[in-house]
Amino acid sequence: MSIKLGPNRYGKAETRLVHVVRDGPVHHIKDINVSTSLSGDMESAHLTGDNAAVLPTDTQKNTAYAFARKHGVGQIEEFALLLARHFVGSQPTIHHARVEIQEYAWSRGGPHSFVREGGEVRTCVVHHDRDGGDSVVSGLTDLVVLNSTGSEFHGYIVDEYTTLPPTTDRILATAVTARWRHTGETASYGKSYEQVRQCLLEAFADTHSLSLQQTLYAMGERALGACPEICEIRLAMPNKHHFLVDLSPFGLDNDNEVYFAADRPYGLIEGSVLRGDAPGAGFAWE
Amino acid sequence: MSIKLGPNRYGKAETRLVHVVRDGPVHHIKDINVSTSLSGDMESAHLTGDNAAVLPTDTQKNTAYAFARKHGVGQIEEFALLLARHFVGSQPTIHHARVEIQEYAWSRGGPHSFVREGGEVRTCVVHHDRDGGDSVVSGLTDLVVLNSTGSEFHGYIVDEYTTLPPTTDRILATAVTARWRHTGETASYGKSYEQVRQCLLEAFADTHSLSLQQTLYAMGERALGACPEICEIRLAMPNKHHFLVDLSPFGLDNDNEVYFAADRPYGLIEGSVLRGDAPGAGFAWE
Amino acid sequence: MSIKLGPNRYGKAETRLVHVVRDGPVHHIKDINVSTSLSGDMESAHLTGDNAAVLPTDTQKNTAYAFARKHGVGQIEEFALLLARHFVGSQPTIHHARVEIQEYAWSRGGPHSFVREGGEVRTCVVHHDRDGGDSVVSGLTDLVVLNSTGSEFHGYIVDEYTTLPPTTDRILATAVTARWRHTGETASYGKSYEQVRQCLLEAFADTHSLSLQQTLYAMGERALGACPEICEIRLAMPNKHHFLVDLSPFGLDNDNEVYFAADRPYGLIEGSVLRGDAPGAGFAWE
Amino acid sequence: MSIKLGPNRYGKAETRLVHVVRDGPVHHIKDINVSTSLSGDMESAHLTGDNAAVLPTDTQKNTAYAFARKHGVGQIEEFALLLARHFVGSQPTIHHARVEIQEYAWSRGGPHSFVREGGEVRTCVVHHDRDGGDSVVSGLTDLVVLNSTGSEFHGYIVDEYTTLPPTTDRILATAVTARWRHTGETASYGKSYEQVRQCLLEAFADTHSLSLQQTLYAMGERALGACPEICEIRLAMPNKHHFLVDLSPFGLDNDNEVYFAADRPYGLIEGSVLRGDAPGAGFAWE
Repeated sequence: MSIKLGPNRYGKAETRLVHVVRDGPVHHIKDINVSTSLSGDMESAHLTGDNAAVLPTDTQKNTAYAFARKHGVGQIEEFALLLARHFVGSQPTIHHARVEIQEYAWSRGGPHSFVREGGEVRTCVVHHDRDGGDSVVSGLTDLVVLNSTGSEFHGYIVDEYTTLPPTTDRILATAVTARWRHTGETASYGKSYEQVRQCLLEAFADTHSLSLQQTLYAMGERALGACPEICEIRLAMPNKHHFLVDLSPFGLDNDNEVYFAADRPYGLIEGSVLRGDAPGAGFAWE
Repeated sequence: MSIKLGPNRYGKAETRLVHVVRDGPVHHIKDINVSTSLSGDMESAHLTGDNAAVLPTDTQKNTAYAFARKHGVGQIEEFALLLARHFVGSQPTIHHARVEIQEYAWSRGGPHSFVREGGEVRTCVVHHDRDGGDSVVSGLTDLVVLNSTGSEFHGYIVDEYTTLPPTTDRILATAVTARWRHTGETASYGKSYEQVRQCLLEAFADTHSLSLQQTLYAMGERALGACPEICEIRLAMPNKHHFLVDLSPFGLDNDNEVYFAADRPYGLIEGSVLRGDAPGAGFAWE
Repeated sequence: MSIKLGPNRYGKAETRLVHVVRDGPVHHIKDINVSTSLSGDMESAHLTGDNAAVLPTDTQKNTAYAFARKHGVGQIEEFALLLARHFVGSQPTIHHARVEIQEYAWSRGGPHSFVREGGEVRTCVVHHDRDGGDSVVSGLTDLVVLNSTGSEFHGYIVDEYTTLPPTTDRILATAVTARWRHTGETASYGKSYEQVRQCLLEAFADTHSLSLQQTLYAMGERALGACPEICEIRLAMPNKHHFLVDLSPFGLDNDNEVYFAADRPYGLIEGSVLRGDAPGAGFAWE
Repeated sequence: MSIKLGPNRYGKAETRLVHVVRDGPVHHIKDINVSTSLSGDMESAHLTGDNAAVLPTDTQKNTAYAFARKHGVGQIEEFALLLARHFVGSQPTIHHARVEIQEYAWSRGGPHSFVREGGEVRTCVVHHDRDGGDSVVSGLTDLVVLNSTGSEFHGYIVDEYTTLPPTTDRILATAVTARWRHTGETASYGKSYEQVRQCLLEAFADTHSLSLQQTLYAMGERALGACPEICEIRLAMPNKHHFLVDLSPFGLDNDNEVYFAADRPYGLIEGSVLRGDAPGAGFAWE
């Protein structure tokens, strides 16, 4: 019997790092969550416990903190690339690095006082490969949106297990997770992020929806149309069901006014929208 | 051996209710989470399973939905009072009702499109008692704030288990849970909420802090000073520790620039600030 | 306007502590989560930021770790009492200490290998007051139980908002949170815990239930009947609804066979069962 | 500019289903969480909102409930295959189905009374493709294990960001997520599950560990060695750090006795172990 090691990686997950920049009495903060993972010559570590090729996860954490001090944090994609290239560049046993960062937004409450914004979280996943170069995927999670009208759902397959009635007016609500792939160097990741986010929100609000799939595609198309620096966007959108409550037992009508917001189960719509000439993704989505 | 029933209550928790008001093409939404609980003549239900005095929790849920349709939702304190008075007023076996509501804020993304704000959650707990009348406590949870300077901590007790060094400059961060008690009828719960929230934020930002206790008291004092309609405020504020990372092993200084944001353990400061002439709280805080 | 400080306390929450006892090659572990909070002469800390009476929360954490080394952990009630008495006894400014501990159970997988049991969490809350002495409340959370028959619900109030049909056979499921108050010194907190837990499980399984209230009372009564060392038990039991799915549109009956397990809303039944001669609770339940 | 639809799927996530089998007074329960997702001719749904090829997620949910009634639940892998084949087999527009199920274990507390076990959750992901046939991946999550000795870590790369000291005795703790791929038809998924789980536990307990990677590989190798029906196993194992507390400031030693169990950051070790002659995985891991 021959048994062998397959794909593997290891790293330090969720290093919570807050970086403060003092501009006189006015401070600026970056609040991020860094996860690094490395792969390379890891056969011996797995088969015999020989760690000669292993850069400890503790060191990866230290590096994130030290780099924040040396280079600042700036755009998360750039900070992630800096780390990924460092790990691969400094250790011959490390062939590939994946760095994922979440950024939590704060709004200003005073010169050095801040209030955490609770909406969406900005994300990125970058890869640096010794041979294959870089990939950058930006994104966001937990962007919760709701249209109180302008959503229909009908014309679907009816089989023996169908009970859902068609509707021409329902609430459409979702918590958007979006990730988008940059084609090459992006001049400003911050501006790009703002523009994609704005496209997603506007297309969600603008699209008269016949299905959540249609809305998803419209959102992706809008972002690709406005942002030449990205070539593909992947969206995962739960259909957060809002059920109209039957008030007729109480002698009351309910003309799309009172809803029960359900937890589970929920629909889950996942899809990719991309340019016809998008380059191959390689390891970008891993 | 004599064994008996002590204090008890029962109800329906976390009825998720979304109410849409259509003003032509412009919609407005209220997104709330309603928990009702009742007490009264419940001996038989507990001792013999005789439910003659029990208004089922399913009916409590239905009532919340029906009342949203009949009366709208409006300010959560008023909607809660409406429900509480209804339960006690309509059933002689129900002597006391407690209604708790959370409200989730949404910002406008279009005439009928909304984006969930993720910051603090507005809350209320009201009681209506057959004999003791009403009480109204408003509040908020998850208001996360951070000062990047202007916080000291020193002069504390030093005992044989002390290792903490005194500091004259640290990050102070917390997630505020606040609840405040109204003295009587409040003209506008919405305006009152905004004013208390603003006081809490301003006092947090303004106070040069020698301890989180001092900041807590300043926040409560500011709210009571500005809002004559409330007589007591209770605050629970975890000290979300941000530890300065020791970068000296890497030949780097760290002048309050790079922090590790810790999860657990955390400090937890709880306190009440009230007027000298505040009336008795009765069941308000239950 | 006179504004003053009301009730307050402060401490270190959720100090995660694992204690290993080596008995040759065979090890034993205790895995606990300690939260301490103190009150006393805290006026100055709140009003002026003078911390002279403050034993820092960092020191409280250190003390928990040091006491684990010096005294072992043993039964959580005893470890909590040790800490509470230490804080009050060693510092004249501290008048009262509250210590709460959760204990996570592990089963043995080898001489020094362990598998975390995932069921209920054992808990305690003890108080030590300079003048009022001690109180000990033991408990558990997240004991999830289900009866697939033997539960009825009917005979309740029917009003204009009633739609629930009566039933003589339903699933009864709940996640028990129980806390029980010891009258005095309890010889073995470990044995007492096992016995109360067993009573709760047996009474839940044995009771033919006409309401969850009846089941709750039976559980409390069983525990008090078997355990003379406790004088009161408080139970909070969500009614985790399991709805029979209507399969008639598919030409199928559903004779209590296929259920939808709902998340929210849920019923919530809370009640206390106590001896007629139980001593006053004082601060025990705070 | 040409923009197009990329990979996509949609379905109903987290349908919570409890199935009761009555064997006279003795009942048996299955408690599962079903997520189905379908792909196929979905261009029109995305591009124009034409739903003619869409089997609604509501119908997918209904089908899960109806199939539980018609076929029982049995082993989750078999129930998942039944659903996946039904969706693809009954609808020409559906080319591919993915069904994921979690199963929660209950132990018996009486003839029809049950206590939820809180440890690991059993899982499966099956695919059925119109052209590519079936794949079955079984697994588990949240199997939390700890060795209090028998774990070393040294001999790793030391660079300018290294501060971790080597150790020959540390706590090794992790929460195992494991997924394993079946080669073909497995005679008994239940027996196979028990055997893999046992191998993972035994190898974790037995392996004197020089790195978590070594332990991971040993666990996978043990399972493959004992279970000819599986050809690959993928493990994700966070290194749940337990840091020895420095008690020397209090004049105490700490010979691997008192630990702080940290939350974040944590190491994360991911790896696959497979047979040399394992067939291609195709879509099995998607």
